[in-house]
Amino acid sequence: MTSEKKPYVIGLDLGGTNSVFGIVDANGYVVEQVSVKTAGHGPEPQHYVSDCVEALMPAIEKVGGLGNIQGMGIGAPNANYYTGCIEFAPNLPWSGTNIPLADLFSKALGGLRVTITNDANAAAQGEMMYGLAKDMKNFIMITLGTGVGSGIVCDGKLVYGSDGLAGELGHVVVEPNGRQCGCGRKGCLETYCSATGVARTARQILTETDEPSLLRNIPLTELESKDVSIAANQGDKVAKEIMDFTGHMLGIACSNFACFNSPEAFIFFGGLTKAGDLLMKPIKEAYDENVLKCYAGKARFYVSELDDAKAAILGASSLGW
Amino acid sequence: MTSEKKPYVIGLDLGGTNSVFGIVDANGYVVEQVSVKTAGHGPEPQHYVSDCVEALMPAIEKVGGLGNIQGMGIGAPNANYYTGCIEFAPNLPWSGTNIPLADLFSKALGGLRVTITNDANAAAQGEMMYGLAKDMKNFIMITLGTGVGSGIVCDGKLVYGSDGLAGELGHVVVEPNGRQCGCGRKGCLETYCSATGVARTARQILTETDEPSLLRNIPLTELESKDVSIAANQGDKVAKEIMDFTGHMLGIACSNFACFNSPEAFIFFGGLTKAGDLLMKPIKEAYDENVLKCYAGKARFYVSELDDAKAAILGASSLGW
Repeated sequence: MTSEKKPYVIGLDLGGTNSVFGIVDANGYVVEQVSVKTAGHGPEPQHYVSDCVEALMPAIEKVGGLGNIQGMGIGAPNANYYTGCIEFAPNLPWSGTNIPLADLFSKALGGLRVTITNDANAAAQGEMMYGLAKDMKNFIMITLGTGVGSGIVCDGKLVYGSDGLAGELGHVVVEPNGRQCGCGRKGCLETYCSATGVARTARQILTETDEPSLLRNIPLTELESKDVSIAANQGDKVAKEIMDFTGHMLGIACSNFACFNSPEAFIFFGGLTKAGDLLMKPIKEAYDENVLKCYAGKARFYVSELDDAKAAILGASSLGW
Repeated sequence: MTSEKKPYVIGLDLGGTNSVFGIVDANGYVVEQVSVKTAGHGPEPQHYVSDCVEALMPAIEKVGGLGNIQGMGIGAPNANYYTGCIEFAPNLPWSGTNIPLADLFSKALGGLRVTITNDANAAAQGEMMYGLAKDMKNFIMITLGTGVGSGIVCDGKLVYGSDGLAGELGHVVVEPNGRQCGCGRKGCLETYCSATGVARTARQILTETDEPSLLRNIPLTELESKDVSIAANQGDKVAKEIMDFTGHMLGIACSNFACFNSPEAFIFFGGLTKAGDLLMKPIKEAYDENVLKCYAGKARFYVSELDDAKAAILGASSLGW
């Protein structure tokens, strides 16, 4: 092969349950996809990696072999871009810290260049490569999933910081002495605006008031953010109030984030964004009300347009170029 | 002249009262210094600029003329790096917005390359060029003056954002519905940790308690942060409590800022830092208590070592290279 760019990259979306590999072309088309269970490969990450590569090889052969692959990108929780390691991974099946996943995959794939980063950074990279941020130099990606993640882009580059772990906006404290967070601190954005945060708000409002609501048909302990979103779309007043509150907290948080890199846009991704304007409208309103005057009216607010099922793979794969 | 670097740059520290010009060599030595009153040159900024250049020319001639000057940097309130303008300047003598100061100086100095930025960004740039941040790639500069300013450096570059106005960490809301800020919002960091914020805390504590204090010898309305600092150094309990509170608020704020760019250091500059450990100790303690676990123990906390009188000129001049 020459030193020209090769036609494909591999993206891996590594989750607690599934590891989804995609072989992606330069237009962001996933030409091959392979799914492997993340757990059950033996105690060592090496076992996982060799099983994955075995499952992946037929797909690689289909696109002409490793010689046609430019690189591989991995999006994984708590992954460190600088070290290539997963630093600590409470939801992944390997014990220990600093699992050198980039290195392990590189060795198993004949020395392929493998880059790893956390899921939200991968999502931001994906937006720059294939999505709404193609022409943006300064934006903030916010992923609203089980937790709240973020990828911050300044002057066209992901912010990795001094240690590769920058961009944890889900853990900015938005309410001093607020809700208890899984991180051990109190009042993190994530405790209000993640899927679990929304369910928490729902349980709180349903317990503290006796307003009638469709949500009362669901046992409190089983209530999920999805239910809130569906009920809000059906016009349920309590559900709308919950979405309003969630959007309000997010909008205020974004108005503070603006002081950092004055982004041209905030791009939201994740299940919660399915609520559409029911979430985006209160975000924008709270932002406009609270942002410092010199930033007013500058940032735009978007929901990612990348296909949900493919976005994580695309994001990860974009690191492979 | 060849295209080689010329031996000097001009730095201008533009304040509401004085405009201080320095001609600076590559080692950060201020070889010539010229001071001009900022007001009183006529209604148009052109008048100010031509008076300044007239006052500056003898100093320029002393270093061999404009041919020996590489460029000029200006540090000024509300200056926009991208546009070269002062966007709005309530404390400067010119009416109107978007005063094209970089352009005006460039024309008056024979087409010299002139760059402008706000004071805190200039300070950060100065630290990178001549100060503690010489070998740093990711740090946050916090200036504690009448207001609280900041310069954020990611991957070796000042963060200017989409509009040139990024890095206003003094206006991150640290206390929802907290103290009224001059910006029209409530609870900004600046309302607690600027010189005026400290005086405010002092008045509040002195009014709400009857604890004896050296500060009671000063009329409440005349109380300044400097008095608090002096009294704290003399062991005054109330004054120490005020410094503790100020440091505590700053430390918590920094623990949230870490979520953005995971800086290797926070560097503080400005009058308040004269309090030394009386301020720095509570900052570090609150930071350690509140920072997200993955960042714990990573950032260092420094007071700028640049000579107070020269630092602003040095910072501005560093843009001239």
